[in-house]
Amino acid sequence: MTSDHTAASAGQRTPVTVLGLGTMGAAIAEVYLRGGYPTTVWNRSPDRAPQLDELGAVRADSLAEALTASALTVVSIADTAGVAALLESVPEALAGRTVLNVSTGRPAEARELASWMATRQGRFLDGGILGMPATLGTPDALLPYSGSPAAQAEHGATIAELGTAKYLGTDAGVAAKHDMAVLAGMYGLFSGFFQATAMIGGEHTTARDFTATFLVPWLRELLDVLPTLATDLDSGDFAPTFVGLADISTVLRMLRTASRDQGIRTDLLDPLQHLFEAGIERGHGSDNLTRAISELRESPVSA
Amino acid sequence: MTSDHTAASAGQRTPVTVLGLGTMGAAIAEVYLRGGYPTTVWNRSPDRAPQLDELGAVRADSLAEALTASALTVVSIADTAGVAALLESVPEALAGRTVLNVSTGRPAEARELASWMATRQGRFLDGGILGMPATLGTPDALLPYSGSPAAQAEHGATIAELGTAKYLGTDAGVAAKHDMAVLAGMYGLFSGFFQATAMIGGEHTTARDFTATFLVPWLRELLDVLPTLATDLDSGDFAPTFVGLADISTVLRMLRTASRDQGIRTDLLDPLQHLFEAGIERGHGSDNLTRAISELRESPVSA
Repeated sequence: MTSDHTAASAGQRTPVTVLGLGTMGAAIAEVYLRGGYPTTVWNRSPDRAPQLDELGAVRADSLAEALTASALTVVSIADTAGVAALLESVPEALAGRTVLNVSTGRPAEARELASWMATRQGRFLDGGILGMPATLGTPDALLPYSGSPAAQAEHGATIAELGTAKYLGTDAGVAAKHDMAVLAGMYGLFSGFFQATAMIGGEHTTARDFTATFLVPWLRELLDVLPTLATDLDSGDFAPTFVGLADISTVLRMLRTASRDQGIRTDLLDPLQHLFEAGIERGHGSDNLTRAISELRESPVSA
Repeated sequence: MTSDHTAASAGQRTPVTVLGLGTMGAAIAEVYLRGGYPTTVWNRSPDRAPQLDELGAVRADSLAEALTASALTVVSIADTAGVAALLESVPEALAGRTVLNVSTGRPAEARELASWMATRQGRFLDGGILGMPATLGTPDALLPYSGSPAAQAEHGATIAELGTAKYLGTDAGVAAKHDMAVLAGMYGLFSGFFQATAMIGGEHTTARDFTATFLVPWLRELLDVLPTLATDLDSGDFAPTFVGLADISTVLRMLRTASRDQGIRTDLLDPLQHLFEAGIERGHGSDNLTRAISELRESPVSA
């Protein structure tokens, strides 16, 4: 991890509070407990995550007690709207405290909460954890976060205990923007997985054999292409480095026909075809496929 | 690679013909030439891939000459429909020959071509190459193929020179079915990449930094989850191992709102939301997300 992390481990460990003891919240508390941080925990239903007790967690009797127990509180509940409701219920407990919200939310919600926290003399950081709970505390867990620079300066090293933490600046909405964009990538991946396994059916192979033998290795190879495509996008150079828009649109049309031949709906793929066709109609057929992205930004896609 | 591969390398190399010298066809020919196989090549426009000449490629003057030069011909052109047209133009050149088609096509097209080839006393195999041209000849290139068992017995080792070759049985359509399904996964991945990079914009980061630092590592981690999800699908066990349908639908709704907040269209994500909602309406909200796949198979998705 970072040199900050080393410094924190070597020096004294600041108390940390964790609000929300679902799978992710409990994993966060465990990282701090195992790292020797005095850790206070609180959950709306008080009996969650009993494994933390053996590790020395202090259970706060109330939300206000939990927040005032530590200079840094990490919140992991269902969503940022819920975090706002929680904090608004204890406005007197926030002065001089830092709250790092890792619950899922929109950039606008993070910015609103940051503004409100400032009115309570509290500091606010918003982040997203990109990683399975089991990866918490390892470099495989990515943690983009943003917001109060004073809070970052004070608690950056403690936050970096959770994984590869990346501070993205003072705008509390930027981390959520990253989080939402990465989730968009996840939903695309799932769409493709759904369509693929529906098409493969169970007649000649299992979904697992197909996925492990063919789908995942191929997608893993394609992941290596994405940064190159992103570079094309940044440069505005739409020369067809990987494949041209017209060609990839033709294959998609073929694939949708093959899907229908098997009685599998193509709903998940149809809008992508429309996007490609809109780009081709604008005369971009020989450009690379990232040209289609501008159609998401600029203008309606004809159906 | 396989023991077949070792046997082929150790023994005599059978002549191979390659039809179509685009990027993939030229890479195929190069693998055989570098492997010491007497290699005949043909392309509709005869001056393609001059680099093959230095490697000792024999250029056939006609398609019929190319096909009769080797017992095994590998065809890589734009699509299987084009392969059918090519072969139908030289029906007298096919008796006793094996054609392996690695062009993209639907299962039905592969089956039709296999049947027609049988009427010409030719053997037919259909396959798909899952790998970048640069991976050809390495285990990273996956090559599912299917069709004539006699052709597989005779040429399996030669075919395995191209990569990790997997013979999927006598139905010539099965390999194309795998190929189409894997491509569906690719289009999903691209959909997600498009939406993600459109949402991240260029204000706080470049598409490349975002993609390399956050998107690709997260998607790489998610790829490891797909075989588990596929196992759930095979078993019909819809317990929420990764995340429940209702929860993932809620986050998708949030993400679509965040996207619209930024002026980015949600066309690519909308059908997935409909799919989730259809599953939830059927009472599957606490099942895992693979339950949504059945909606692609069974019934209309309400818009």
